Amino acid sequence: MAFLGLGAMGSRMALNLQRKGFEVIGWNRTAGKGQPLAEAGGRLAGSPAEAARGADFVVTMLSDPAAVRGVTAGPEGFLGACRSGTGWIECSTIGPSAAREMAEAARAAKVAFIDAPVLGSLKPAADGTLVFLVGGPADEVTRVRPLLEAMGRTVHHLGPAGQGAAAKIVFNMLLGTMLAGLAEALTLSERLGLDRARMVDLLGEGPTGAPFLRMKAPLMLTEDFTPAFQLKWLEKDLGLALLDAYRLGATLPASEGAHTAYAAARASGHGDQDSAAVAAILREMARGPAGA
Amino acid sequence: MAFLGLGAMGSRMALNLQRKGFEVIGWNRTAGKGQPLAEAGGRLAGSPAEAARGADFVVTMLSDPAAVRGVTAGPEGFLGACRSGTGWIECSTIGPSAAREMAEAARAAKVAFIDAPVLGSLKPAADGTLVFLVGGPADEVTRVRPLLEAMGRTVHHLGPAGQGAAAKIVFNMLLGTMLAGLAEALTLSERLGLDRARMVDLLGEGPTGAPFLRMKAPLMLTEDFTPAFQLKWLEKDLGLALLDAYRLGATLPASEGAHTAYAAARASGHGDQDSAAVAAILREMARGPAGA
Amino acid sequence: MAFLGLGAMGSRMALNLQRKGFEVIGWNRTAGKGQPLAEAGGRLAGSPAEAARGADFVVTMLSDPAAVRGVTAGPEGFLGACRSGTGWIECSTIGPSAAREMAEAARAAKVAFIDAPVLGSLKPAADGTLVFLVGGPADEVTRVRPLLEAMGRTVHHLGPAGQGAAAKIVFNMLLGTMLAGLAEALTLSERLGLDRARMVDLLGEGPTGAPFLRMKAPLMLTEDFTPAFQLKWLEKDLGLALLDAYRLGATLPASEGAHTAYAAARASGHGDQDSAAVAAILREMARGPAGA
Amino acid sequence: MAFLGLGAMGSRMALNLQRKGFEVIGWNRTAGKGQPLAEAGGRLAGSPAEAARGADFVVTMLSDPAAVRGVTAGPEGFLGACRSGTGWIECSTIGPSAAREMAEAARAAKVAFIDAPVLGSLKPAADGTLVFLVGGPADEVTRVRPLLEAMGRTVHHLGPAGQGAAAKIVFNMLLGTMLAGLAEALTLSERLGLDRARMVDLLGEGPTGAPFLRMKAPLMLTEDFTPAFQLKWLEKDLGLALLDAYRLGATLPASEGAHTAYAAARASGHGDQDSAAVAAILREMARGPAGA
Repeated sequence: MAFLGLGAMGSRMALNLQRKGFEVIGWNRTAGKGQPLAEAGGRLAGSPAEAARGADFVVTMLSDPAAVRGVTAGPEGFLGACRSGTGWIECSTIGPSAAREMAEAARAAKVAFIDAPVLGSLKPAADGTLVFLVGGPADEVTRVRPLLEAMGRTVHHLGPAGQGAAAKIVFNMLLGTMLAGLAEALTLSERLGLDRARMVDLLGEGPTGAPFLRMKAPLMLTEDFTPAFQLKWLEKDLGLALLDAYRLGATLPASEGAHTAYAAARASGHGDQDSAAVAAILREMARGPAGA
Repeated sequence: MAFLGLGAMGSRMALNLQRKGFEVIGWNRTAGKGQPLAEAGGRLAGSPAEAARGADFVVTMLSDPAAVRGVTAGPEGFLGACRSGTGWIECSTIGPSAAREMAEAARAAKVAFIDAPVLGSLKPAADGTLVFLVGGPADEVTRVRPLLEAMGRTVHHLGPAGQGAAAKIVFNMLLGTMLAGLAEALTLSERLGLDRARMVDLLGEGPTGAPFLRMKAPLMLTEDFTPAFQLKWLEKDLGLALLDAYRLGATLPASEGAHTAYAAARASGHGDQDSAAVAAILREMARGPAGA
Repeated sequence: MAFLGLGAMGSRMALNLQRKGFEVIGWNRTAGKGQPLAEAGGRLAGSPAEAARGADFVVTMLSDPAAVRGVTAGPEGFLGACRSGTGWIECSTIGPSAAREMAEAARAAKVAFIDAPVLGSLKPAADGTLVFLVGGPADEVTRVRPLLEAMGRTVHHLGPAGQGAAAKIVFNMLLGTMLAGLAEALTLSERLGLDRARMVDLLGEGPTGAPFLRMKAPLMLTEDFTPAFQLKWLEKDLGLALLDAYRLGATLPASEGAHTAYAAARASGHGDQDSAAVAAILREMARGPAGA
Repeated sequence: MAFLGLGAMGSRMALNLQRKGFEVIGWNRTAGKGQPLAEAGGRLAGSPAEAARGADFVVTMLSDPAAVRGVTAGPEGFLGACRSGTGWIECSTIGPSAAREMAEAARAAKVAFIDAPVLGSLKPAADGTLVFLVGGPADEVTRVRPLLEAMGRTVHHLGPAGQGAAAKIVFNMLLGTMLAGLAEALTLSERLGLDRARMVDLLGEGPTGAPFLRMKAPLMLTEDFTPAFQLKWLEKDLGLALLDAYRLGATLPASEGAHTAYAAARASGHGDQDSAAVAAILREMARGPAGA
């Protein structure tokens, strides 16, 4: 089987497949990222097409819709190299519109498509405890289940092609709004003279105590923004969700406000840090025009 | 002791005080609300001043800063009626600026002030399991602790006068932003054709699974907006938090977006419903200009 | 020539064409709207296809992308009925993506396409003084210029197909943000106790004195919201602009805030009123949670 | 007479007073700024109190409420040094709450107060063509009119103390929202492939053609952000307006979105540039997470 995209997430997922007995041929746009897979016995290919030739399954784990489009078409694209009946498991976060576009491209190439983006970042990817949100035909989901279970602990089948992608952006939109909300709460706490560490305890227990917030709040205090989930990708996910919201006629003001905070953070140089770094730009903005 | 404000929260809190051996003299702006307290052996007064005359403690549990100001000053106001050394426990959610204003008024009247707003709505108020966020001098907090423990299970002393009020609005700001975020997530889910009940399960577990969201999400599905915490008061609390944010030079875009959603909901007639009714206005707005 | 869409704008534009010597065959989804055109000597057709059969030009002036799609394809759609070389002048406000989609559909049907949305509402439409923002090939723009000049006073050719539509949504986005900004300024003026009529004078002259604001501000004072440009269509236009913004990775916070205000106004029943009615919802929201 | 605050605006205003026959004693927090006044025959004082001693009028032109408070009270504050009946003309932009606070402080010191903030930036200040928005008692406005007319061309008396300050922040709020709206329109234009210079022409004429936008749009094209009106002060003015909006229970979503854009621009280092530099941060944010 082929695995396209060996970044922070993909390399960990591919390793789990290889370890659990699948023969993985990996590919990554920038070389070097494939080293861990090679060391574990996997092979590396020079192009998406080369990786996919003869494969029964192709997994893609890339950054955004443009990156996924970039590996499908053209002379090096994998769709033209697949044999009929190959299963494509699309794990990137690209939103339902792009996922349905990919499903169309797959159908034209006689490739079976499911969208299967994941919940969980680096540690669950390494531990094989990701959660898959899956869209596609039931029989195809059944067929690929062993692969998904090699990488994750739960598979939610949510509907036809595109619905896994849809659920994922809804999920990340809420994640992003909650995280921005937490950062704003700590910003205001500080300006009000409250002990931020004490507030982190208070907000982490009781009604507002979501696991994600308990995990990220301490990073906001220490400003250790080593990336588990890069801020620019959370901005992208909120953007994909809001793109669909506008396509469908909705207005989602809290999520739009959160998106603006991430965009401001990225424009100020925090894009490659962990998404908790949204706290840094909010603090900076909160110094006020007179630099209080 | 006097208890001023026998609304949905106050009446339950006063009952717990009476049951646990305090002799409570209650007062409410609109009569009739005092019936449960009277039946439990409490007394009712005709004015704040009458209730407070001779009391060793006065608890206030009112809707907003204007209501608190309304019971302190003037011929019927309680501050003029208190004997020196009376302890005032201010449990309303009025924000730190108003709390410090009240602390000043108390000092001038030789009354000891603490701000002690609560976390928890109707059920914890009835069960005596509220959480108190307290600002004020340590010795005064010690002195009033038995009263607080008659009404709640935890007392967090967070700093001098105003800091309980500060922590409370930060807390409710995050609560309001998370709840609006959830409502937006369900709105987008519906427009994307996802099963909202399934999404409620998904968002309620894992990283985003805050107890408050798990409690409110089902109400958004059934649109049962019987008030546990009226939407207009959550709008008010976000407004108080943002008032302080602007006073201090901060900009908090996600919380501002959430506030707008609550204001739109209230302007459309949802103010007296539970705050989960923010989902109703977002759904309505999401029908789009062409009424999709 | 055919004219599809005889609503408030289209009927006035078609009348000008008929008066200036073009033989117009009109069509409208709901009958009855064609009466003025018939009285002026025009003819009415029973379907888009019937209107377009044999026509050298087809003008479309409809409400949104869905309505335009609705008249192009299918058995009654006009594209299949056109002879090769017919010129299609698309005057609706549908955004660049939909305009390019229409250009594609036209090419497939051997129809020459330009997008030519207009600036100006009812009066300029009646007076033949509209401004056209045009995208398409230069020779086609030259060919249709006499028709455009029968309906308007200025033709801006801005680039290839889609660029007229692009400029129009940028224009209306700014219009909508300025109008919401004016409504917010008058809302705050009122709450601050300023004389709103005096503020309208002040804001209408000097740096902020845009013609559009001078025209709309008095309507906000009198609350006469007889529609010149229905609020729901301005909401739609902002939505189309923001859809493209999200597609392209931008975040436009003031325009997003304005869009939310229009969506709230429409959800509260102001959609069919003039877009100045955004002032009504802002006033209502500004009464605050306690109904000040 | 005394003139406190000889910054970019104040120095130009003081010069006009001196030239038109008033004997001006100037003061500025950082020395050196008084040079032009001294060269024109004015005197310089070492403290606000020294400047105001014996003066019949005191003009203040400072950056924000904190700066105004800084010159009024304490041993060097001017209020204690004024003789009874001195007229205080407060020209800073501080909002109605701070203006009323100053009116109170003035009354206690037997000083006659008017708030008289100005419309217009560097050039009108130099030319003596500012517009004054005045709050205060009618007789006091009459008494100070000759001073105002030495610095400006129009005096709008809008009500009692605080109403000049109120009108000014409403005015600047609209200015700021329109300017952010223009920057967003040009941002979207660029991303849509439109010729920005052509769009500046288009948006500058017709319905959206406000003088302020015509003046600022070319600066956004050339990115010449030499300050005529520093961005941080426009952020401050929007913040003051929104502070009052929250105090009064209003929600103003377009203005809040604009405020966020200015705060992001200031946090990214554009605070000392002209307010048109809001276009720079919006462009940067519009590159999207993938840096398009």
